[in-house]
Amino acid sequence: MIEEILTLIENKEFVKLRSTLSEMNAPDIAVMFDEIPEEFIIRLFRLLPKELAAESFVEMDADTQEHLIKRFSDKELHDVLDEMFVDDTVDIIEEMPANVVKRILKHTDPQIRSEINKILNYPKDSAGSIMTIEYVDLKAHMTVAEAFDRIRKTGVDKETVYTCYVTDQNRHLIGITTVKDLLLNDYETRIGDMMETNVIYVDTAEDKEEVSNLFGKYDFLAMPVVDKETRLVGIITFDDVIDVIQEEHTEDIEKMAAILPSEKPYLKTSALEIFKNRIPWLMLLMLSSTFTQKIISSFEATLATCVALTAFIPMLMGTGGNSGGQASVTIIRGLSLGEVEMKDILKVLWKEFLVSFFCGIALAVVNFGKMMLVDQGAIIASGQNPILVALVVSLTLLATVVCAKLVGCSLPILVKRLGFDPAVTASPFVTTIVDAISLLIYFVIAMQVLHI
Amino acid sequence: MIEEILTLIENKEFVKLRSTLSEMNAPDIAVMFDEIPEEFIIRLFRLLPKELAAESFVEMDADTQEHLIKRFSDKELHDVLDEMFVDDTVDIIEEMPANVVKRILKHTDPQIRSEINKILNYPKDSAGSIMTIEYVDLKAHMTVAEAFDRIRKTGVDKETVYTCYVTDQNRHLIGITTVKDLLLNDYETRIGDMMETNVIYVDTAEDKEEVSNLFGKYDFLAMPVVDKETRLVGIITFDDVIDVIQEEHTEDIEKMAAILPSEKPYLKTSALEIFKNRIPWLMLLMLSSTFTQKIISSFEATLATCVALTAFIPMLMGTGGNSGGQASVTIIRGLSLGEVEMKDILKVLWKEFLVSFFCGIALAVVNFGKMMLVDQGAIIASGQNPILVALVVSLTLLATVVCAKLVGCSLPILVKRLGFDPAVTASPFVTTIVDAISLLIYFVIAMQVLHI
Repeated sequence: MIEEILTLIENKEFVKLRSTLSEMNAPDIAVMFDEIPEEFIIRLFRLLPKELAAESFVEMDADTQEHLIKRFSDKELHDVLDEMFVDDTVDIIEEMPANVVKRILKHTDPQIRSEINKILNYPKDSAGSIMTIEYVDLKAHMTVAEAFDRIRKTGVDKETVYTCYVTDQNRHLIGITTVKDLLLNDYETRIGDMMETNVIYVDTAEDKEEVSNLFGKYDFLAMPVVDKETRLVGIITFDDVIDVIQEEHTEDIEKMAAILPSEKPYLKTSALEIFKNRIPWLMLLMLSSTFTQKIISSFEATLATCVALTAFIPMLMGTGGNSGGQASVTIIRGLSLGEVEMKDILKVLWKEFLVSFFCGIALAVVNFGKMMLVDQGAIIASGQNPILVALVVSLTLLATVVCAKLVGCSLPILVKRLGFDPAVTASPFVTTIVDAISLLIYFVIAMQVLHI
Repeated sequence: MIEEILTLIENKEFVKLRSTLSEMNAPDIAVMFDEIPEEFIIRLFRLLPKELAAESFVEMDADTQEHLIKRFSDKELHDVLDEMFVDDTVDIIEEMPANVVKRILKHTDPQIRSEINKILNYPKDSAGSIMTIEYVDLKAHMTVAEAFDRIRKTGVDKETVYTCYVTDQNRHLIGITTVKDLLLNDYETRIGDMMETNVIYVDTAEDKEEVSNLFGKYDFLAMPVVDKETRLVGIITFDDVIDVIQEEHTEDIEKMAAILPSEKPYLKTSALEIFKNRIPWLMLLMLSSTFTQKIISSFEATLATCVALTAFIPMLMGTGGNSGGQASVTIIRGLSLGEVEMKDILKVLWKEFLVSFFCGIALAVVNFGKMMLVDQGAIIASGQNPILVALVVSLTLLATVVCAKLVGCSLPILVKRLGFDPAVTASPFVTTIVDAISLLIYFVIAMQVLHI
């Protein structure tokens, strides 16, 4: 596709180029713009029909957008901004350097500019920061026919026309209705008589993850956003919510893997930025393993008496880490979906105790068998009783798995209770704690059983 | 809320109960039904208005649904099924035991029954398995006014009326139009003249994760599903896609934490099922750590000469695992969002090499300083030169981090290339490989530098 477009540019077949572009979808055009050589970008953009140009512009990478804005004439910039919805303009402004932002705001209509500034002032990740102001508002005294007139007259500039918001003279939200309901009612019906008055709405300060959970629960097309006096100030549409869900998911996964959240796609992020996002947790976890190191050092005499014990340390710590990670990740996900809550902590602990006991027994039995079959010779060679050593390792395994799962399942709930994001308590964090616990258990059991 | 409802039941205030219920939303009613004592369920259900009853029924837990279906009279079951969309009926059938399924199918209209059977036959996770058949279809020769008539007449039974599908006499999909476009055109305009002919559709066999990516890209309300001859067979709506995205998330996270995917919420899953989902990977990873154990055993002589080295094994393996996990999780997420592809493997390797080099140097320098400050005494006590031991550990750290990140970033891409889900190559899997590599590096460097 890109090849074809580039050939058309080189052969100056602009008529054909324009008609090819007109038949494409905005998201596909945006992907193409992100990949063609820079020198063609502005020329190609000027061939796009006005509306399609703005739609594609919104979908492009921040780099391509910045490149274009810098090259736009004042009129071109004004035209593109005019076609865009306010929430998209805000998204772009948030990615641009200060001088570009200045230029964008200069070419925005004063009224829109003040709305943009309001949205920019809402806290990051709040409902206010992702809403748009282009919604259809109706009055209770209108008839269905009048409502359709209003939609026909103003609908082309609205992000969605399918859910309409009914407000009183003070802009308080008093009801909603849908185009489907309008279509299924008589033209003379009054909006006030048919509207849904039991409206679910969010406050501008609501967290956007909570907003996305509400969308998932109620299957909304759009959700109204109100201020402290329940005056309607904007709406959030389902397409923005899908983006929010994907972003939150990426953030969760990054936190679980001990990475600070990044804002940009991997291939667009510089090695230095990736380094900055990864090194803090690596450093912290490295330094905190000083505990395990100290534990091993203080049992050096025990290890010297039975060198064979050293060989099983990685297996014990690995299994402990994996067991704890399984439990913590399950609970973190349950918390973020709202399936698990603070009040379930005893149920969770009991369930994880059962699971860890089953897992621990299964692993201990298999490990005992394996050690008797495979490692017997090596243990005898180091001067120890293989049955006793296998018993020490298997008992430690059982105790470690139980501890790991109990720590893994309770930490996320406690951390959430303290007001932090439970995602940080996933495997790497749990592993570091469990490593220390499992070593202590190992040495204590070894000293008891082997009398060393 | 539940307290209030239970009090109303006990006081037999059925009129008040009915009016309270009528004002609630279906998802909230469903949550309540899942939590009230079983003996009240059917009595309360019978108080719901017909349409709200069906809407709430769809949102309930499988257990509550099964309980209700078993207690429904034939007429009640028929009424509920009649109000439901086919995709919801299919979802419920998939959760029910065979005898309940039989009863459901018996009370479904023959034509719907044959559609249900078709959908049940599409492969799990395919577009066909999540679609519904209730869409508005129009013909190209209709006018806008005729289209509105059709929507008014048939719309109440359709899952969405906002996107309409234009088919020819052989049911081939030839275009789409939206209610917004219908509203913004004159009543005399012919559908054939205003419809969008460049339609994006999916095949029944398409993977549902791919479908959800298309929704994210194109911001669709609904997506048409066609058979091999591009005949329209159904649609997928955005609300089902939000569910798919959430499910895929949970599945990804579970796979990354070495858990087999579960279908049910955590608190509804028995300890035995959780055990079954977690033990296979735990067992496999435990047995595969036999490699690290063998490596340690074969260097037992080296360790005996310098016992201090043992104490740093957990830190080296932990840091290696965390570094590799960071890289693999980043790439897995990039692959699933389509931001990273097979062809980017060299770019990825180079970027990870840079990142790992920066991380490795930073960690090695800090570790060297820390060992000289904190561990010097212990190392001297064990008869070794502290500078040399710190050098060995720091060099190993650098080499381990570089290896871990290169393994971590390339494994997911290779595994995807082989046709498997890259999510299984997250931390636990990578850690096991990196553990072995880091130990080998450790002992080789130790023998070279310390001459042991």
